[in-house]
Amino acid sequence: MVRALYVGRFQPFHKGHLEAVKSILSECGEVVVAIGSSQKSHEPDNLFTAGERVEMAYESLKEAGLADRCLIVCVPDVNYNALWVRHVSVLSPRFDVVYSNNSLVATLFREAGAKVKQLKAARRKEFDGTHVRGLMLRGGEWEKLLPPAAARVALKAKAASRLREVVKGDKI
Amino acid sequence: MVRALYVGRFQPFHKGHLEAVKSILSECGEVVVAIGSSQKSHEPDNLFTAGERVEMAYESLKEAGLADRCLIVCVPDVNYNALWVRHVSVLSPRFDVVYSNNSLVATLFREAGAKVKQLKAARRKEFDGTHVRGLMLRGGEWEKLLPPAAARVALKAKAASRLREVVKGDKI
Amino acid sequence: MVRALYVGRFQPFHKGHLEAVKSILSECGEVVVAIGSSQKSHEPDNLFTAGERVEMAYESLKEAGLADRCLIVCVPDVNYNALWVRHVSVLSPRFDVVYSNNSLVATLFREAGAKVKQLKAARRKEFDGTHVRGLMLRGGEWEKLLPPAAARVALKAKAASRLREVVKGDKI
Amino acid sequence: MVRALYVGRFQPFHKGHLEAVKSILSECGEVVVAIGSSQKSHEPDNLFTAGERVEMAYESLKEAGLADRCLIVCVPDVNYNALWVRHVSVLSPRFDVVYSNNSLVATLFREAGAKVKQLKAARRKEFDGTHVRGLMLRGGEWEKLLPPAAARVALKAKAASRLREVVKGDKI
Amino acid sequence: MVRALYVGRFQPFHKGHLEAVKSILSECGEVVVAIGSSQKSHEPDNLFTAGERVEMAYESLKEAGLADRCLIVCVPDVNYNALWVRHVSVLSPRFDVVYSNNSLVATLFREAGAKVKQLKAARRKEFDGTHVRGLMLRGGEWEKLLPPAAARVALKAKAASRLREVVKGDKI
Amino acid sequence: MVRALYVGRFQPFHKGHLEAVKSILSECGEVVVAIGSSQKSHEPDNLFTAGERVEMAYESLKEAGLADRCLIVCVPDVNYNALWVRHVSVLSPRFDVVYSNNSLVATLFREAGAKVKQLKAARRKEFDGTHVRGLMLRGGEWEKLLPPAAARVALKAKAASRLREVVKGDKI
Repeated sequence: MVRALYVGRFQPFHKGHLEAVKSILSECGEVVVAIGSSQKSHEPDNLFTAGERVEMAYESLKEAGLADRCLIVCVPDVNYNALWVRHVSVLSPRFDVVYSNNSLVATLFREAGAKVKQLKAARRKEFDGTHVRGLMLRGGEWEKLLPPAAARVALKAKAASRLREVVKGDKI
Repeated sequence: MVRALYVGRFQPFHKGHLEAVKSILSECGEVVVAIGSSQKSHEPDNLFTAGERVEMAYESLKEAGLADRCLIVCVPDVNYNALWVRHVSVLSPRFDVVYSNNSLVATLFREAGAKVKQLKAARRKEFDGTHVRGLMLRGGEWEKLLPPAAARVALKAKAASRLREVVKGDKI
Repeated sequence: MVRALYVGRFQPFHKGHLEAVKSILSECGEVVVAIGSSQKSHEPDNLFTAGERVEMAYESLKEAGLADRCLIVCVPDVNYNALWVRHVSVLSPRFDVVYSNNSLVATLFREAGAKVKQLKAARRKEFDGTHVRGLMLRGGEWEKLLPPAAARVALKAKAASRLREVVKGDKI
Repeated sequence: MVRALYVGRFQPFHKGHLEAVKSILSECGEVVVAIGSSQKSHEPDNLFTAGERVEMAYESLKEAGLADRCLIVCVPDVNYNALWVRHVSVLSPRFDVVYSNNSLVATLFREAGAKVKQLKAARRKEFDGTHVRGLMLRGGEWEKLLPPAAARVALKAKAASRLREVVKGDKI
Repeated sequence: MVRALYVGRFQPFHKGHLEAVKSILSECGEVVVAIGSSQKSHEPDNLFTAGERVEMAYESLKEAGLADRCLIVCVPDVNYNALWVRHVSVLSPRFDVVYSNNSLVATLFREAGAKVKQLKAARRKEFDGTHVRGLMLRGGEWEKLLPPAAARVALKAKAASRLREVVKGDKI
Repeated sequence: MVRALYVGRFQPFHKGHLEAVKSILSECGEVVVAIGSSQKSHEPDNLFTAGERVEMAYESLKEAGLADRCLIVCVPDVNYNALWVRHVSVLSPRFDVVYSNNSLVATLFREAGAKVKQLKAARRKEFDGTHVRGLMLRGGEWEKLLPPAAARVALKAKAASRLREVVKGDKI
């Protein structure tokens, strides 16, 4: 059985991610969903904690009937690019192929000799984290862009209100 | 639905751990299996990498038909005990009760106001990580003490041979 | 007795900070002055070392006769926002209320269930770290904006000359 | 005015430490009390958090009427001995002389060219952290060995009960 | 014999660096080449790994017949400017004078009491890391700006192709 | 040309190490001397700083006429065994074979697919770091066991006196 690694930050886990998982599962038997920059949260581009992202992904995959073919792992940054591929590989069960549209992730895995595939473009451009967070800020209907289970997790975390605070630009 | 957190190092994931998960699932709807000291491996008491432990746990729970009620997360050490409870809580989806027989884990969670329950003693004392690693060293039949799926992962990792090397006491 | 936590970076400790402490002490019995990003120094926005900032705050509070109601603690960054509130709370004696005008600090403490109060605006807008550092750069009379004791510490550190070097934009 | 640096772990802050501060203040104008290994807690030899130790020291020094000549700083370990003196020196206001009975601390400061003095032996050998923690474990009258204010902090932290849990030897 | 410390990032090691070493060796007996930000790689401004930079410098110095008067050390960032001088000094054999055109490096060493000298401007402005990386991106003749031995290392690392990937701006 | 990696802690660099380098150079064209646990010093088993060890190795290899075939790199611990091989490999120029008598180093490199060779036993058992440090403690003639150049560095560092302080067992 072929197992894929699918790397992203999932800020938040939206319908584009769910489509990507389905697409990968049409080619592979199992997929490891690797949540990158897991230590980050409460930033404009990194709003949710690792636990919130795990919960969004897990509940969405369960809702879609895919939970038994998916495994979720968290990957904190190492801030040492040349170690990163090994770091992910140690945190994950073995995998056979990597899916990512991030050029740095792809380059690092290719230099390490891994097989890397591009994800097909999501069907609709709304399925994009930046777009979702933009709607959150402006009071738009972001919930529709997330799987229902993920939207519930984001609402419970009061995501829109958190985002409006953290975009003010303060750092600690 | 009640979600439990079950904390351990799972070096390796053996039948006692599987029994514990079953026991927790007789009381709770879901369980988060938190793999502690996830950055450690290749030590006499911490033989397996995080990824190998995730794979052992995941395949064993799947084999037992429990995968859809279990979620696995990895928890690297922070070496800062007073932060640890918060660290675990950030890495995990929300949970309602903690299961652990580790007195430090229990103390830290109790000081933080969490509900902590003891695990019932495993049925047989062989179900113990130290015992399993002892058998590995002496060439005993350790495989029987692991769920078949976990044993397969451990064999693929050449666990016994790795252990015989790392017990020599060298550090880097 | 009510103890307040007052969080800032104090780059440098200026008269606005001293006014804020006085204002807090009109409402609370004691205040913990928490110096954030304590590991930073020799940057355009983070000029002084932790020790220099401790000395500025301590000598200024002593000069103002407030030393026996104030306690100073240093808080290095953890670069892990979701842990930060717990991190500060572990480094500080217990406190009952948090004063901060930083929206991220306020959000993190509110999510953790703490009582957060806004600081009243400083009487004069010159009482602002960015303004003080601007004067330093342009050779203005920045010393007047600091309590005399803090100005002495800054002069001994040759702050203006250090700032002129570090604004050149080089990083290590 | 001569300012001294007094380095210890203060697990807990006991009467021997208070005597040492008094003795130093008979020779120097001010003392910086540096709490080492500040990130440690909930271990048999490192029971209290940094904040609890700060509170013990601060309340005890206040009770003794010494607060206005004392400054407390926390020093997390760097696990890099050759950097440690510089690390302490950055976290503390400038100081002229170092007091310590720890041979490593003394060696590192002497190699760095600092003036190091031995602390006079405490009057009574009970004034010793190991002895205090031993009494806590055995249910003895440890409170008498701490300044009253420090004992109150330790009691509020349920120190004896915490210690009895953490001596069981579990690590996370 | 006078030993110099020469600090840079060497991204990549080009002819300007080789000229600088020669110039320093006309004044000093030996030079320690300190490769800063050694943990960085695969970024637009930090393209090469530490090992690749060590190899470039070593082979170039050997080719120029200077290897027996040069020593190469790697210096990972500490992200704590006030510790940096000590950190470099611990990683290097003792040295008598520092050469750097980086104003922060110069400031930090001067505050620590070291003798700091400016490097004479390189003969030609092409001898500049930013210029070299710009040529790599645009398909220009960057190889001529490196010592032949360094160019061989950069070609083996497929530097230009790596750079074209990492400038796309993705982070992990 | 074959390049070897030779991993050790070199506490201190003694004649056994020099013999090992000569032996490796009888089989390979060049050797990278990798100084492990480089962040450690001032401990009974890790007495010298990285810089002192670099200087000992460099001067000894120069004295022996081997400097132009040897390259020295420092490797700080990562405390994450499964990353260690990659970490060393990033810090070093490429190498073709690894020499080490440390069973953990050998295991980790073998699991990573590298070619690992044992070092031939040193001719005399005195050529051993523990033995050298024992002589230092007891006032024996340890200098004879080091290459003359390394002994000079150790004497300048007042190694014996430092060791007598740090064996007292204090930690910071």
